[in-house]
Amino acid sequence: MACCFAEVNLRSMRIAEILCTGTELLLGHTVDRHLPWLARQLFPLGFRVGRFTIVPDGEPIKFALQEALARKPEIVLVSGGLGPTSDDLTRESLAEVLGTQLVESSVAIEAIRKRLQERKRSFIPSMRKQALHPPGALLLENNFGTAPGIAQKIGQGYWVFLLPGPPRELQPMFLDYVVPLIKEYFPKKDDQIIEKIYTVVGLGESAIEELIGREIEANSDIEVGYCARPNEVDLRLIGKKNVLESWDAKIRNTLGDHLACEDGLKLEEVVIKELRQERLKISVAESCTGGLIASRLTDVSGASEVFVCGVVAYSNEAKSNLLGVPVELIASHGAVSQEVAKAMAEGIRKLTKSDFAIATTGIAGPSGGTPQKPVGTCFIAVAANGKPTVCLSVYLPTTREAFKFAISQTALNLLQKVLKKVKKS
Amino acid sequence: MACCFAEVNLRSMRIAEILCTGTELLLGHTVDRHLPWLARQLFPLGFRVGRFTIVPDGEPIKFALQEALARKPEIVLVSGGLGPTSDDLTRESLAEVLGTQLVESSVAIEAIRKRLQERKRSFIPSMRKQALHPPGALLLENNFGTAPGIAQKIGQGYWVFLLPGPPRELQPMFLDYVVPLIKEYFPKKDDQIIEKIYTVVGLGESAIEELIGREIEANSDIEVGYCARPNEVDLRLIGKKNVLESWDAKIRNTLGDHLACEDGLKLEEVVIKELRQERLKISVAESCTGGLIASRLTDVSGASEVFVCGVVAYSNEAKSNLLGVPVELIASHGAVSQEVAKAMAEGIRKLTKSDFAIATTGIAGPSGGTPQKPVGTCFIAVAANGKPTVCLSVYLPTTREAFKFAISQTALNLLQKVLKKVKKS
Repeated sequence: MACCFAEVNLRSMRIAEILCTGTELLLGHTVDRHLPWLARQLFPLGFRVGRFTIVPDGEPIKFALQEALARKPEIVLVSGGLGPTSDDLTRESLAEVLGTQLVESSVAIEAIRKRLQERKRSFIPSMRKQALHPPGALLLENNFGTAPGIAQKIGQGYWVFLLPGPPRELQPMFLDYVVPLIKEYFPKKDDQIIEKIYTVVGLGESAIEELIGREIEANSDIEVGYCARPNEVDLRLIGKKNVLESWDAKIRNTLGDHLACEDGLKLEEVVIKELRQERLKISVAESCTGGLIASRLTDVSGASEVFVCGVVAYSNEAKSNLLGVPVELIASHGAVSQEVAKAMAEGIRKLTKSDFAIATTGIAGPSGGTPQKPVGTCFIAVAANGKPTVCLSVYLPTTREAFKFAISQTALNLLQKVLKKVKKS
Repeated sequence: MACCFAEVNLRSMRIAEILCTGTELLLGHTVDRHLPWLARQLFPLGFRVGRFTIVPDGEPIKFALQEALARKPEIVLVSGGLGPTSDDLTRESLAEVLGTQLVESSVAIEAIRKRLQERKRSFIPSMRKQALHPPGALLLENNFGTAPGIAQKIGQGYWVFLLPGPPRELQPMFLDYVVPLIKEYFPKKDDQIIEKIYTVVGLGESAIEELIGREIEANSDIEVGYCARPNEVDLRLIGKKNVLESWDAKIRNTLGDHLACEDGLKLEEVVIKELRQERLKISVAESCTGGLIASRLTDVSGASEVFVCGVVAYSNEAKSNLLGVPVELIASHGAVSQEVAKAMAEGIRKLTKSDFAIATTGIAGPSGGTPQKPVGTCFIAVAANGKPTVCLSVYLPTTREAFKFAISQTALNLLQKVLKKVKKS
């Protein structure tokens, strides 16, 4: 399903375009991170991205800039091509499009010299071009590199921003200098338009559409979108704050325990936060997820307060020697079984004296499947101190990496459910 | 540094454009995976991507298609907007651009009916539009969804391909139907143009440029590119096969042990392959990498043959109880120390009877740093049976996730070095 912007957006939001230069992006070697980051910054400022373009530097950037301006978005953000080398041509392209000549800023020259001195590097003549800008442009300080950015007002209130390519330079420059300019020149058209995301684990896109999505679309001017990943779907709503709020309770009731997290928060962040609030400790025993659950939990700053230990027990020996899973249990039920999953969870919980433990055992594939237990079979157990261990059986045939992620997500969602029950009791 | 296509490319390669529809991409909620995948498929077919565009569906897709065709790339690949809903308008847009009317394919209607029957779903009238196509177009079978793709020849040998949005439908359709058409209609201009990537760990971009990059650029018509990540850089060369080969030995000598892997292979794939060849077993004891090394190793199919066990020993108790690191050692040197890293590696190796073991201990941040051991400090140890344990001290202040990845990469590179020495001895 594709999706165009709903009417409510066209009335209430402004349009931005983003233009990136990057040969390694066009060769497929790196994944663009500018669009996801910038789009999420722009939305709360009242902007949606109307178009995103990647071109190689040189002539193509000039044409792309010309075309973007002809579409009259209120702002155009350009990244890359501000460096000192001969193929860095974004500044020159802007000047050509504007029919003007670049001028040199003595202030910028001094700033570049100072920055190089601090880093004990010498000033190379080619760096001089980084101080060039169209007449009347604002120069944006670069606190993490030598090339300043450029903010250029065009005609009746359109702005072009030239930003450096590396995210560690672009992001602070955007936050420190572009955001204040946007706030000054483009006040929000409607302060009440918000976005709400419900991340749902264990229900498919069409099930969510059936259960609640169609009803929302038919009875409101909310823009409804879905983004499906294996065993997980984002339900995305955009609309007036009060309208979204009026649907919230119904959506929560409908999704129930399948609702795993909200507003793009990662499930590991939610889980670590809940555990920290309750001062509860967790450990993990992983087979088929291979350390991914531990790695995701320890991605969260502050995880060390609640995360005790993880064991990646890939071999049967590790399962019995380290986690105390009886050898006979593995022999009679197989390593991929509900019984072994439960024994792994209980084993690591006791071993590490944790309040909770998660365990996974399954067949990630592509090899290792049998007719009885095909690739995609998985058992997830959660043990809790003083409670019976729960176990979930999942069948998710997909790629190895998608399987690992989907199982880790399902496991964290199961932990959430158990946590909720423990808190209630 | 930006980079335009080198002359050798413009002479020897064809240009493709890629056009995606996707509101969730433009909102920043999902990261585009089509460009990286398609670009890597297209290169060996003799194509480079000249432009990549994302638009919302509806009118914008029509304009973007029109503009793309006006630039006359030899092929245009469009993804998304082929579904049954009213905002799926890619087919209609193509017809409008071509100034023609869509016609219905009875064969496609039957295929859709059959596919729905197999999935035990019923035919909804709105699905009928998925069988529409411009007159004279080829329909591309969709083996993983209902909407067929469209291949349309335009004028003197330009082609437009409309492909479904979900990667699990787009990728097989591209491989099964688009690749054969491309091979038939666009024979490679120069079979000798290849791409070569050297992934270098522990040397910066400017160091590599200094050591070898500039020399290559000055003395050949090879296109040289760099892509830097924390503690890691890809050196990317594009040019004639024999020219690249003539530089290969010199590049290897210059990079030495810093050369971690080649041609976009992941370091975990290289390591698992080497271990499997030598029938050697590995275990991992992780503190600051939190399970990421285990997770990366177990991402590789066949890892179970060589990967025995991982322990994520986040707490001091786990380090001493599970890995046998003496409590006094932690007390006297601190958990983040060379001594503890070595003891962790030796502990897990003996515990799991593995040939090798990797251990990491460090301060990922953002909190937890001290003046003596600031955020970014890390010790990486590799223990090998019958050899002295080696330890590397690294200082990498960056974000938590980037730190974890860079340390995992540096650790796998250190394992490679130890493996090389063991093989030689």
